[in-house]
Amino acid sequence: MCQLLGMNCNVPTDICFSFEGFAARAGLTDHHTDGWGIGFFEDGGCRTFLDSLPASQSPIAALVKQYPIKSRNVIAHIRKATHGHVTLENCHPFVREMWGKYWLFAHNGELNHFHPTLGGRYNPVGDTDSERAFCLILEHLFQSFPQGNPNAEALYRAMAEITRHIATHGIFNFLLSNGQWLFAHCSTKLNYIIREHPFQSAHLVDQDITLDFSQVTTPADRVTVIATTPLTYNESWTMIWPGELLLFQDGIPRKF
Amino acid sequence: MCQLLGMNCNVPTDICFSFEGFAARAGLTDHHTDGWGIGFFEDGGCRTFLDSLPASQSPIAALVKQYPIKSRNVIAHIRKATHGHVTLENCHPFVREMWGKYWLFAHNGELNHFHPTLGGRYNPVGDTDSERAFCLILEHLFQSFPQGNPNAEALYRAMAEITRHIATHGIFNFLLSNGQWLFAHCSTKLNYIIREHPFQSAHLVDQDITLDFSQVTTPADRVTVIATTPLTYNESWTMIWPGELLLFQDGIPRKF
Repeated sequence: MCQLLGMNCNVPTDICFSFEGFAARAGLTDHHTDGWGIGFFEDGGCRTFLDSLPASQSPIAALVKQYPIKSRNVIAHIRKATHGHVTLENCHPFVREMWGKYWLFAHNGELNHFHPTLGGRYNPVGDTDSERAFCLILEHLFQSFPQGNPNAEALYRAMAEITRHIATHGIFNFLLSNGQWLFAHCSTKLNYIIREHPFQSAHLVDQDITLDFSQVTTPADRVTVIATTPLTYNESWTMIWPGELLLFQDGIPRKF
Repeated sequence: MCQLLGMNCNVPTDICFSFEGFAARAGLTDHHTDGWGIGFFEDGGCRTFLDSLPASQSPIAALVKQYPIKSRNVIAHIRKATHGHVTLENCHPFVREMWGKYWLFAHNGELNHFHPTLGGRYNPVGDTDSERAFCLILEHLFQSFPQGNPNAEALYRAMAEITRHIATHGIFNFLLSNGQWLFAHCSTKLNYIIREHPFQSAHLVDQDITLDFSQVTTPADRVTVIATTPLTYNESWTMIWPGELLLFQDGIPRKF
């Protein structure tokens, strides 16, 4: 199994603190060592950093920990291979373009007997169940909205429909973002925390590091971090219920 | 205007030496300071590193110079903005998926009055003429080969056709790869060198660095480097003729 990390904010924020703890789970405090990746939206742009080395040993992960890229939507993944080989093309997050926007996707879980017929518009490059699921989601959205660019509610309903279908095949925790909204679906395990004014300090579970958020924020900031299991000790994380799909916008979870 | 760097080899090879010289042109020896990017194919996978900082100052470029990623097809770009803003979404190379493979594209030049009608399958995210050209190429290829995955000759002919069309709009030097083949088209300026046994030393034009390739290769290796202008002093680079389209495979240029 893998682990997921996501961030959705109302202002561009760096993820260095959370990623420091998360990356430790790829070889130091846990065993998710079969590659990793992270994707950042910056305005319309999206850049990913991928490596098939464990995140705890990867020079690229070392850079990401230290280089404060400011983003409103981030998705990261550390992999423990179940389906698919340990190669670069199987590293999450996966990226595709739809309606002139990039879409970013990462999955934790395992889908069994899942070989959907795809329409040819979005094709997997690697051999994971996860990339197949991503392609099926995009095909479904594309077919659901021939005019493109639906509003949040319409998109949520279409996402809920295809998610329910795919989730019948197994464990389907995922994060998906188009740079504006970030979807989080829990099959088994996913938690989030909303940090906002008045900001407190937090201490990582996986590293002996504390950060006082009040020193690095303004009162108007709102930053939501989503992770497979809580990344900090002294904060109250909210569990997403199994079967629940949330759409995060400006750091606020919504359902329709 | 921008500058291009490409590599096509018969064995996975790192591009650290060439990229060291190339990145110097982004602020040290030349003025291509409006962002940069590089993309590496590794088997079916493709990873890109993008930054809107000048390559000569970017921490990500510093990593790429030092981290020897082995690849058979690489495309890099340093940007001097003409069309489009200096933002991440306008950084080359651009990536899309077609027929279950990633396709990577970078352009040097300027296309005027170029607003093609696209079929909706591949859409630009940013506002450059370059990304529009890439989307039009993919649309053309997709429509030309409904069954997907044409052979080298058929793909070359379709590429030549769409390239001739786009080149009527202005300057269209480009590099494009699907991880198997690398296309290079020259409108105004593009050069290449084939390095093979017996390997020699080379000295960078833009940095005081010499590398003896015989120390880092085997006699079976063949490495072709393509660049807007030659990167080394003491080697004989071959000019690609204006209007010429080459398909590189295993370090060998082909035409059909």
